[in-house]
Amino acid sequence: MSDLSSPNWFTEQCDHTGTAISLRIKHKIVEKQSRFQKIEIYETTDFGYLMVIDGCTMLSTRDNFLYHEMMTHPALFTHEQPKNVVVIGGGDCGILNQVLKHDSVESVHQVDIDALVTEMAQHYFPQLCESNQDPRAKLEFTDGIQFMQLAKPASFDVIIVDSTDPIGPGEGLFNHAFYRNCLDALRPGGILVQQSQSPILHQALIKEMRDAMRLAGFDDLQSFLFPQPIYPSGMWSCTLARKAEPFGSFRQTDANLLSDKLEYYNPAIHLAGMQLPNFLKRALAL
Amino acid sequence: MSDLSSPNWFTEQCDHTGTAISLRIKHKIVEKQSRFQKIEIYETTDFGYLMVIDGCTMLSTRDNFLYHEMMTHPALFTHEQPKNVVVIGGGDCGILNQVLKHDSVESVHQVDIDALVTEMAQHYFPQLCESNQDPRAKLEFTDGIQFMQLAKPASFDVIIVDSTDPIGPGEGLFNHAFYRNCLDALRPGGILVQQSQSPILHQALIKEMRDAMRLAGFDDLQSFLFPQPIYPSGMWSCTLARKAEPFGSFRQTDANLLSDKLEYYNPAIHLAGMQLPNFLKRALAL
Repeated sequence: MSDLSSPNWFTEQCDHTGTAISLRIKHKIVEKQSRFQKIEIYETTDFGYLMVIDGCTMLSTRDNFLYHEMMTHPALFTHEQPKNVVVIGGGDCGILNQVLKHDSVESVHQVDIDALVTEMAQHYFPQLCESNQDPRAKLEFTDGIQFMQLAKPASFDVIIVDSTDPIGPGEGLFNHAFYRNCLDALRPGGILVQQSQSPILHQALIKEMRDAMRLAGFDDLQSFLFPQPIYPSGMWSCTLARKAEPFGSFRQTDANLLSDKLEYYNPAIHLAGMQLPNFLKRALAL
Repeated sequence: MSDLSSPNWFTEQCDHTGTAISLRIKHKIVEKQSRFQKIEIYETTDFGYLMVIDGCTMLSTRDNFLYHEMMTHPALFTHEQPKNVVVIGGGDCGILNQVLKHDSVESVHQVDIDALVTEMAQHYFPQLCESNQDPRAKLEFTDGIQFMQLAKPASFDVIIVDSTDPIGPGEGLFNHAFYRNCLDALRPGGILVQQSQSPILHQALIKEMRDAMRLAGFDDLQSFLFPQPIYPSGMWSCTLARKAEPFGSFRQTDANLLSDKLEYYNPAIHLAGMQLPNFLKRALAL
């Protein structure tokens, strides 16, 4: 136990769940304070680079593909033809990069409040930023909540909310007013997808999020589960909500074509990720 | 970081993967040394009791259902009519308890080398031991490798290998000779299932295990994935191998009937667990 207190490990201690996850590090590379938050980059021994914001593990080189692929492809392949996409948060450009793999996409607005996150990603996670110069990519550094308030009605096909935890700066991305603005900004059949924490540790939060999305007027919901080793419990989720149309269509052939270029996602994983274990169905009253 | 070095956290540090997982503890309840290993029980703040063997996390009250259900039900519901089952290891009785939920089962031999594990489980994990008095349960405290050497040919329908890691005492459960003995002990159509570590961290081991099973003469293999928050990476796997018959039949209706009594497993989860992500299919050359 004593070794973990040495400077050779980065630990994220999750007090409200009584769990902690650590990665062994070679050294801290940089620490910068932006107007909004403290961003640190570590070099780990086994997971490549690690970005930490205000003490919370954000992403590593080795395993970010799990989260970025699952936040993107289930939503985009469930939409008939996603043309205009917005990513709220996501300053590391990992989701942007995945969205741009879809040929139907004509524009992606990435709206992160903190330009320093993107600057750090360009430096330490260049593979996530390799499509930043794509003419379809629109990087905006402004408040995502306000961006959705001001968005033109029925102007987007998919809204991806890559938020931090629902405390602190991310809090306003988990409520009725925000979902209402997202609903207005979506075209009919449009899809909102948001990270919804751990299905093992945060069932009450998933239920609250789903209730709030439904109350805001979304017609159908679907949560997806996927592994994420560096987040608490190692299993994570995202929740999709659809405007004015139940889920059903899944462009399986298109998904299969793209999956050659992906590390986690394929059509069978898409369908598997939608299957919820008994404890979660019971907690969500499904 | 410094808090984790306090006596309030139990940490399993996995040096060969550069990861560590911690649970917050109220206190250590007991530590005993058997002829074979050191067994400790902690009371955690959020995961109930925790059993640790030789420093390695074995199971917690809160999340053991994931592992025990997935080590049992995919194999038993893939077999046409499992009557005689053997569990190698599994002294905590968690798998035994799941196997006995199957009405077709006439006998379950639980073969663990260390009676102290079962004694501790009866005390601190009584819910896992609630079927120990079932007349179908045969608890034997002897060496599992030798048990399989001496087993009557074609006498079992399902063999479940609930081994520790493939180093130390568990090593002899991961090789050709052992698999050969299992094959002989199975009836045609019989199934061997073994825990096969983390699909994210131990892909080489999964491949070696599958190669060894095939080389021993098993006709078809199927790995299943499931979450396990207190094991490295939070995602774990088991691998099924079938004697003289490819997989195919899955008793979905029976699985559905039992799933009301289970916390994780249901027929959709069974099918979902078989779907492998791209990185694993590539690592296993599937």
